[in-house]
This record gives sequence, C-alpha cells and structure tokens, in this order.
Amino acid sequence: MKPLFVINPNSSVIVTAGIDAAMEPLRRMGVPIQCMTLEQGPPAIENQMEADLTIAPMLALAQGLAEEAGGFVVACFGDPGVRALRCAVSQPVVGIQEAAVATALTLGQRFGVISILPASIPRHMRSFGAMGVMDRLAGDRALGLGVADLAHEGRTLEAMVACGQRLRDDDGADVLIMGCAGMAIYRHKLEEALGLPVVEPCQAGAALAIGQMMMGYGRTLDAD
Amino acid sequence: MKPLFVINPNSSVIVTAGIDAAMEPLRRMGVPIQCMTLEQGPPAIENQMEADLTIAPMLALAQGLAEEAGGFVVACFGDPGVRALRCAVSQPVVGIQEAAVATALTLGQRFGVISILPASIPRHMRSFGAMGVMDRLAGDRALGLGVADLAHEGRTLEAMVACGQRLRDDDGADVLIMGCAGMAIYRHKLEEALGLPVVEPCQAGAALAIGQMMMGYGRTLDAD
Amino acid sequence: MKPLFVINPNSSVIVTAGIDAAMEPLRRMGVPIQCMTLEQGPPAIENQMEADLTIAPMLALAQGLAEEAGGFVVACFGDPGVRALRCAVSQPVVGIQEAAVATALTLGQRFGVISILPASIPRHMRSFGAMGVMDRLAGDRALGLGVADLAHEGRTLEAMVACGQRLRDDDGADVLIMGCAGMAIYRHKLEEALGLPVVEPCQAGAALAIGQMMMGYGRTLDAD
Amino acid sequence: MKPLFVINPNSSVIVTAGIDAAMEPLRRMGVPIQCMTLEQGPPAIENQMEADLTIAPMLALAQGLAEEAGGFVVACFGDPGVRALRCAVSQPVVGIQEAAVATALTLGQRFGVISILPASIPRHMRSFGAMGVMDRLAGDRALGLGVADLAHEGRTLEAMVACGQRLRDDDGADVLIMGCAGMAIYRHKLEEALGLPVVEPCQAGAALAIGQMMMGYGRTLDAD
Amino acid sequence: MKPLFVINPNSSVIVTAGIDAAMEPLRRMGVPIQCMTLEQGPPAIENQMEADLTIAPMLALAQGLAEEAGGFVVACFGDPGVRALRCAVSQPVVGIQEAAVATALTLGQRFGVISILPASIPRHMRSFGAMGVMDRLAGDRALGLGVADLAHEGRTLEAMVACGQRLRDDDGADVLIMGCAGMAIYRHKLEEALGLPVVEPCQAGAALAIGQMMMGYGRTLDAD
Amino acid sequence: MKPLFVINPNSSVIVTAGIDAAMEPLRRMGVPIQCMTLEQGPPAIENQMEADLTIAPMLALAQGLAEEAGGFVVACFGDPGVRALRCAVSQPVVGIQEAAVATALTLGQRFGVISILPASIPRHMRSFGAMGVMDRLAGDRALGLGVADLAHEGRTLEAMVACGQRLRDDDGADVLIMGCAGMAIYRHKLEEALGLPVVEPCQAGAALAIGQMMMGYGRTLDAD
Repeated sequence: MKPLFVINPNSSVIVTAGIDAAMEPLRRMGVPIQCMTLEQGPPAIENQMEADLTIAPMLALAQGLAEEAGGFVVACFGDPGVRALRCAVSQPVVGIQEAAVATALTLGQRFGVISILPASIPRHMRSFGAMGVMDRLAGDRALGLGVADLAHEGRTLEAMVACGQRLRDDDGADVLIMGCAGMAIYRHKLEEALGLPVVEPCQAGAALAIGQMMMGYGRTLDAD
Repeated sequence: MKPLFVINPNSSVIVTAGIDAAMEPLRRMGVPIQCMTLEQGPPAIENQMEADLTIAPMLALAQGLAEEAGGFVVACFGDPGVRALRCAVSQPVVGIQEAAVATALTLGQRFGVISILPASIPRHMRSFGAMGVMDRLAGDRALGLGVADLAHEGRTLEAMVACGQRLRDDDGADVLIMGCAGMAIYRHKLEEALGLPVVEPCQAGAALAIGQMMMGYGRTLDAD
Repeated sequence: MKPLFVINPNSSVIVTAGIDAAMEPLRRMGVPIQCMTLEQGPPAIENQMEADLTIAPMLALAQGLAEEAGGFVVACFGDPGVRALRCAVSQPVVGIQEAAVATALTLGQRFGVISILPASIPRHMRSFGAMGVMDRLAGDRALGLGVADLAHEGRTLEAMVACGQRLRDDDGADVLIMGCAGMAIYRHKLEEALGLPVVEPCQAGAALAIGQMMMGYGRTLDAD
Repeated sequence: MKPLFVINPNSSVIVTAGIDAAMEPLRRMGVPIQCMTLEQGPPAIENQMEADLTIAPMLALAQGLAEEAGGFVVACFGDPGVRALRCAVSQPVVGIQEAAVATALTLGQRFGVISILPASIPRHMRSFGAMGVMDRLAGDRALGLGVADLAHEGRTLEAMVACGQRLRDDDGADVLIMGCAGMAIYRHKLEEALGLPVVEPCQAGAALAIGQMMMGYGRTLDAD
Repeated sequence: MKPLFVINPNSSVIVTAGIDAAMEPLRRMGVPIQCMTLEQGPPAIENQMEADLTIAPMLALAQGLAEEAGGFVVACFGDPGVRALRCAVSQPVVGIQEAAVATALTLGQRFGVISILPASIPRHMRSFGAMGVMDRLAGDRALGLGVADLAHEGRTLEAMVACGQRLRDDDGADVLIMGCAGMAIYRHKLEEALGLPVVEPCQAGAALAIGQMMMGYGRTLDAD
Repeated sequence: MKPLFVINPNSSVIVTAGIDAAMEPLRRMGVPIQCMTLEQGPPAIENQMEADLTIAPMLALAQGLAEEAGGFVVACFGDPGVRALRCAVSQPVVGIQEAAVATALTLGQRFGVISILPASIPRHMRSFGAMGVMDRLAGDRALGLGVADLAHEGRTLEAMVACGQRLRDDDGADVLIMGCAGMAIYRHKLEEALGLPVVEPCQAGAALAIGQMMMGYGRTLDAD
C-alpha cells in the first residue's frame, strides 16, 4: 500500500512531531502514514497571506512525492492549497478543516470550535459557509491566550476547558473541533473534562483520506 | 479488534449479500466487518412506517451483539433507529445516509442523489435539512423504474446513467450518492459513464465507522 | 363531526389530563377532542430510543381508532411516529412540535424554546433543521431543573421565566415555544411575566389539525 | 363570538365574492367570517407600489371595525400592511401569504407556488426569505396567461395543472400553494389532477386566524 | 450630471441636516447630492405602521422630482417604499438598509447591528432574511437608551461602544452597521474605540446609488 | 486623489485592455483608475491551482504600488489573493466576484451567473457559500463554448443570450452576473436582449472600491 503523506505547511518540526504522534492510533488502518514538514513555510500560519504563500512550495513538495503517494493530507486548519493540489495530483487530497467538520457532523448535532486567535474566526466562518454547514455551527471562540501562556501546558488546557464549557453551555455545542493542527495532546483530557467528543483535525483528515483511498476515489471533477 | 456489524434492516439476504460484497475493499482497514440480516424486517423498506417498525427488532439484534461489537452500521438509506441505537450501546453507530452525505461533502461541492422511488425524495429532503446541508444539494431525482425493470441490470444501469446525467448537467452535481443500500454493483460503471465520483452509502458508512473506532469515539451526548 | 384524537404516547394519565385541560378553549371549534393515553408507552419520553419505541404501539392504537377518527395529534414534542401514522391512515395527522413551530412562525419573527433537559436540545435542532426553520430560531435553552424541583410549581415557573427572559433578552426571541407536552398550565403566567406570546404545543397541534380537517386535507404524497 | 374580518384590499367585488365562497367550509369553526372589499383599492394588485398604496385605506377600514372585530385577515398574497395593522389593533392579524406557507409546511416537505405573473415571483422570494423558509421552497412558477385566457376557466385550469405538474415532477414539490387570492374555485380540481394537497391562501389565513383567536393570542411584541 | 436625491422620510430637519453632513465625503464622486425632508412624515419612524404610512407621500415627492433626478436614496433604516418607488421611476433607487448590508458584506465576514429600540430588531431580522444574509449576521442589539439619554451625546456614544463591544466580543462581529439614519456623527469615534469598520447607512446608500448611476443601471425587472 | 489600481492577474494584455475600456464610465467618479497586467500570471486562469499561483507575484506587484495607491481591485472572478492582500496593505482591496455579488443583491432578488467553463461552477458555489448568499442564487450555467467559438463575437453573444434566457426563464434570475473578467463588451447587448440588468464584475469592483475609498475604509480586522 502506498503511504498517505500528511504535510505540515509550516516549518515547525515540533508541530510535525505532534501531528505524527496523533497519527498513532490510525496506523492500524492498513496504510503507512508519513508526516512531512514544509521547510519553506513560516514558523506558524497566522493569517491568510501566510497561508496563501505556502501553496506554491507545498505544491512543489507534493508533486515531488506524487509517484510514491497513496494520498495527501494538508495539515493546516484553513486548508490552504487543498483544491490546488487536487488539480495537480490524481490521488485523494484532504484538508484537515473540511475533514474535521465532516467528522463532527457525524458525532453531534452542533459543533463548537476552539480557536487560538480571534482573528482566525472570520476565516473559519468563510470556510464553514463555503462548506454550507453554518446551521450546524454552535460557535467558534478563541482561547484568548498570549504566547507565554500557550507554552504552559496547564494554562492552555485550562483555557481550552473554559472555552469548551462556554461552547457547550452557552452556545449549545455537543461536539467540539480543535481549530488548529497543534492541539492533539489535549484531545482526551478535553473529552474527559467536558463529556463531549472532541475532533482533532489531523486525525480526522487522515482517517477520511484512508477511507477515500480504500474506496478508490481519486481526482474529482471539482479539481479542474 | 472487535468486528463492525453492518445490519441490513430488511429481511432480504440478497441485499445483505450485495452489501457484503461492497465491503470487500474496506476489509483491508484492520477491522473485521460482519453483515447481518434483520429477519423480522420487511422484504424492502419503502415508506416511513416500514422504516420505523424495524427499529424495535433492530435494537434487540444490536443489543444482543453489543458485547462483542466494535461498532455498528445501520444499512438503510433513511437511517432508521440510528439515534435510538446510540442510546442503547456505547460503540460508534453510523447511519449510511449521513455517512454518504459526509463523504460526498469531501468529494465535491454539490451532491446529487439517485433515488429509486419519487416518494422517498421528501423523506431525503427532511434528512438533508436535519443535517443542515441543503445548500450542498444539487438535486435528488428518482429512477422512475418499475419492479420488472429493476430486475433487469442493463435497464437499471441505463436509468441510473440518465438520472446521473440530469443531476450533473441540469442540476450541477459534481458528486453523486446512490440513495439506496442495494446499488453497490453499479458504482464503478456509473463513475465511468459520468466522470464523477459516486458514493455507495454502505461503503461510506463502514469507512466512517472504522475511522471513528480507530480514533476512539463512542457514546456521544446526543445519545441521551 | 368525527372526533380529533390527541394521543399522549407516554403512559402518564396525569400528563394526559393536563393535555385535556389545555384543549378546553379549542372545544368551541366544532370538533370533539378526545385525549388518549398510550398504556404501553414509558412513564416519560426522555431520549430517542424511548421515543422510537412508542411508534409501534401508537400505530396500533391509532389504527384501531381510524374508522371513527376525524384526525390525529401525536402529543409528544419530538413528533415520534407522525410520518409513519400518515402512511397508515388517511386523516390529517399532526405532530405537536411541527405545529408549535408553524404557529410560532406566525406570531413572531424569532422563536425561543424552553426545554426541560439539555439533552433534548440536539434532537430539537435536528427537527428544526428538517423543518428548514433554523433562521427563525432565536435559541433553545433548558430549565436545568432536577426532578424534585419540577414537582414544585413555583420553582418551575420561576425557572421558566428566567429561561424565557434569557431567550428574549440575550437571544432575541419575540415568541416562545414550550418544548414539552406537559407545561400547559404555565402558558398564561409566562405570557404575563414576559410580555411575549407563548405557544403551548398541544393546543397548537389541535388547532392546526382542526383547521386541516375543516379544509378537507387528508393523506399527502409525503405519506407514501 | 366576535367576527373575523377578511379584507380584500383590491376593489373587485367579484374577487371578494370568490373569497367569501372559499370560506364556506370554515364557517363551522365557531366564528362568524365577514368578507369586506376595500373600495379605495385598485381593481387588481399587480406590483409593489399598488400593494403599498392599499395600506393607508386598509388601516382606516380595519381601525373602524376594531371594536367589533375578533380578528383580521388581509387577503392579498403579498401581505400588504399586515405588520402595520398589528401596530394598530390588538386582535390577531394574519396575512394570507404567511398563512399559506405555514399551512403548506405541515402538509408536505417542499412547496411549489403557482403564480399568475412572472413579475410577482421576485416579490414572493423576498417574502419567503423573510419567513426563513427558502429551503422548503421547491419552486415558484408563473401561469404565463394573458388576461383573455384568465377569463376562460378551462384554459386557466389547464395552465394551472401544467404549472403544477412542472412544480411536482421537475422541482420536487409535494404540496402546492395558489399564489393569489382569486383562485379558490380551482383548488379541488387541481388536487384531483395532481394528487397533491393544494393550499388556498384565504382558507389558510382564516383557519389560522380562528386558531389564534381560540388560543387567545393578540398583540405581539413584533407589532411595536 | 443630474443630482441624487436623498429623501429623509421623517419630518425632522435636524435628522436631514445630519444626513447632509454625512454626505460630505461623497460629494467628490461627480454627482450632486440633495437631501430632502418629507414634511408629511412623522417626527420619527418607530414602527411598521409609521414606516408604511410614509410611502404614499414619499412616492408623491419623488415622482415630482423624477424629471430632474439622477437617482434616489430612501434614508430610513427599514427601506419603506423602496420597491414601490422602483415601480414609479426609472432611475436607480436605493434603500439605506440594503445598501448598508451590501457594503458590510464586503468589509467583514459577520456584521453586527446597533439598533436604538429592541422592538426594531424583529423588523431587521425580516429584512435580513429577505436579503438572504442571515448567515452573515453576527447579532443585532439595542442601545437600551431612553429619550433623555439619546439627547446626551456622551451617553449615547458610551452606549454605542458598549453595544459594539458585545457584538464584537460575544457575537463575533468584524464589521458594524449603525441601524438608524441619524447616527452619522458617531461613526469615526466608534471605529476608533472598537477597531472595526462601521457602516453609516446613508453614506452606504449614496455611494451605492452613485455607483449604479455611473454604471448606467435603471429600472429592473423586479420593479414591475 | 491617489489612483485605484485594477490588477488583472493573468498575463493577457488584451484582457487588460478590455477591463480598461470597461472602466470608462467610472472615470467620472473622482478617482484615477489604472489597469495593470500581472506579467508572471498565466495566459488565462482556468483552475484553482492557476489561481492560487498568481497570489505571490500579485502580492509583490501590489506591495510595490502600495505607497502611491488609493485602493486595489483584483480582477479575476474567483478573487485569488484578495484576503491575502488585505493583510499586506492598508487601503481598500476589492475582489470582483464579491463586488459583482454585492452589486447584484441590490439590483434584483435572485442572480444568475453566466460562466465560461462548467468546471468553474463548483468553485463559484464555494464562494457564494462563503459569502452566505446561496438563497439569492438562481443558477450558474456555463456557455459550453469551445475556444474557437469564443473568438467569434457573434457566436459568443448568441450563447450568452441563450444562457441568460435559461437563467431568467427556468431558474428565475432577475439580474445576471458575467462570471469572468473578459466579457465587458457584451454587457449592454445582453441587457437589451434579455431585459435584465447585467453586472460586469470589473465595473462592480471598481465602483465598490471607489465608494470604500470615499467613505474612508481601510484595513479591517478580517485582514489579520
């Protein structure tokens, strides 16, 4: 079986390592999973310009892997270049944002999103609108943490739990999505604290891509 | 790994055999897949009353399997009893209609549905509305075949191609869903004839259920 | 004039008596209204499994009444079996949830729902989505009362008023729906306290069914 | 019981007579129904300017009747002045367009509208959007008849049947609304020809108003 | 170049003077802008009846100006008579509410509305629904000020800032609309205090009307 | 007044010349309009990969012009890089697709889109969904012309008229959008042939950008 390549379009090897660890339970699904770092990417992707500028080097990286690949996941919540890559390769290509949403739709009735920065939320709304799922959105709320706090695992979890409680109790979410590729280690602690299923988008992306590979999907009309 | 049980809630062993064949490519995903027939079900499920009346015996069958099960798929396009079963067991429970829609959302922008009977379409609309995906629906059209024609493979395929062409060319579908559990053998021929990905709902249901099992989801709040 | 049968699908005769009292003002509309208890139902319907399991005995009860009936109302907020019953009888069949919503749509611009349990809200959302009215929904909030509190009329009213104020002031509701068949005695007190019209779903269901009977509607295509 | 006043805001006594005849089956509902003609209205209301200019004299007429009235129906598909009248009187005030839609929502899953003029359709879309029911709309199609044809009953029915067939077979309607106050005599013939329930908006308006009167609704917050 | 007439449909010359001042930056766009007061209008428009009753005299005023006009703006948030006027004249006719929304759609992803009175909000919802933009609405909140407070500039600004903060921080608005024709003087102070673009609806209406005039649009089909 | 730069992100100077001609009537609006060709762009933009790959050089071009610019229009229907550019400059940045839609919303109730290629339509749907305007969309249909036909003005106009008639008569459009930057010369002929307003997206983009410049909008929160 050809491998699934999970491309982290930022240049942080720590983030890639976190994604790789999150893939562990999915390695039983019969497909090798290889996580890659986009060296030319920025250390972190915080706005649409940074996201869009990863597309050209990401396409080059993926096209270089195309012969040996079974499928691709683009591991940035925002799905930069996902549709462009579908024009360039014939394998399944999955974005982690759309995968997280598709997964959440089958785990609850209204999803809440835990975002890091308030400025990401309008971008998420645009994507959820493009996916046509605004009626399933309970809310999207930012952690409101500074950089120093984010380095502190206890404070980050605390903020995520508080954010999740608000999404659950005020906004009516019955499933949560972590709106960022680098939060995987908090998934089970959040689920325990909140009593709700939590979708880690890289896991959702890989599971969905493997399913598409097994069912034999490839290039779609939409890719033209 | 505990098996995934795919329950056909009608009593037709021929339909179950067709579902079982459709599972073949998904058997590489690390989970045994067992297809079951609901003996107390009707020969075919053609309206909401027939669908609702399968729920009680289907729950009994599934509860009897619960100890040995890794997950459940209810294999009737209409998802009868899916939410009831989520109240009764703690494993992932997936309906093939919602799975087909979630899968189609990631393969194209607007999905078309090929239904057997015109009378099923309002029920589908209700479900798509409940899923909040009406803006992604291109159209839902019936084959308009009589029972005699359905027994004839050539005529059925012809009618499916004609229906798919209308969904693609007039309604703007770029991915199709087969709106019935018993159409699996036509999937690849339809894809070739139409140049669009075609979602077979039992496959979509099993792939999604296995993904949920691997990621470790179980009972959700929605099940209460 | 043949009577309208209002079937309470739980087994509580106290709830049925409350429904019967709520029918009083509608008995001037030219149609006898008879309230029935489903003996085989559970004492209360609190999740989808309990709701679905009422369908088979409810259908049997209704089919036994069909010859003498002018119409049917299924008096559980959740409308279990309403569409199944439309397949079985030719008279108008109305669910109290869809009737409450249709009534609220003509009394205000955005409706708020007062629910007893938080776990019911995702089910309501699914129904409101199926009805295509999510843009008219201001919010759906639970009373957050324990069983002991619910037995206490003063505390229940207090919680309902608090819930209604939040729906009115934070969520923007200008009409309220009581999301349960057993709250009729609070309707006028709530209206006075909040200055908003309040829809009692059993009343809404019976008024709508009588209107359909008078206009001569019966079996619809949707029932097939 | 105080009467329900059904006000025809055009000056055609023939249209008023047609509305009065359509009220016949609803006269068993315990409320006297009186149909009135707005003498200052135009002979027919064909655009938004004509509709808006009926509001001032309609308000004057209704306010003159307010002391003796139990409720009001404004019988023009377009609901001119309905919300203004709610500011002026404390009784239930119902527009026939919103009543027809609310009624259709409980008789089928997707409604089709038979309009007389193509130019009315954008106005209807605005109203259906304001009601938040666009996902329930199958289609709105015009008869495409000239004035001479409309005077001819056979040709009008033929055109209505053709229009209804297109709404049913191409657009997927399972319930139809007659998009005009003057089509009542065709309702039953259309239902027979098409096998679908057909909503006559004046009947829907009166049935809904009587229901509101019986349940004791009056002025709503929305009227301020 | 023929002038753009901006008609204030209330009788307050102070409001008209405020609108006139707000037009200042748009006077560089190559079209003379003339602000008019509707003498027969009420001192303020606070409900739908008052709004509807301005239509007849507003139409008379506009029709008297039609020969010399290049275009019209109706300067009441609620757009009374906008569609009626499109039936009566062939020039571009713009309502400030729809113009404010169209402008906000291009300045942010979700708009918040600052309203004066709570009772206006259901009317706004109806309009936003008619415009089909409910998924872009973050929230609509009222200032909650009494008349005495509104006369006090400092208190009004303070209330607007508090309202805007709630729309931004709780509801997720990234662009604000002032839901009234008379708030222009607060626009820049609000933008500074909140860090968000603020749409003043009269400016939005005039800019949009001038654009339509330059591009040569006139009577549309919708006007029939 | 600083100029508005209209950037054609493909490398065709013929297309740029066509855009420049279309700007003529807008040059009276008090702002110089300069049309630029992106030399590094492809000869035509026909899929998402080609669109995304224009972003980096387009940003470089625009950033080089930023000091002397009053505003920017990105003149490709698809709006590539519009949100990225908003992160990089503080002036108004307008995409012609969102501008065409915002303009159409004020000229009719349901817009139809005339596209060149069928494969563009799913991309348009995603954008219209992101804009939250799917309920205002009547339809999006492709011309179905080959390259040879497109070079032939008569055949192109004929195909556009046929496409527009279908959008108007079958889909219910009352305003049309030309879904491509290079169709400006056909606008008035289409309007005459169809009796509907037709939006040329480059004109709509420039008019909207000039309005934003005059009203003093710049960087929005959404740009972060």
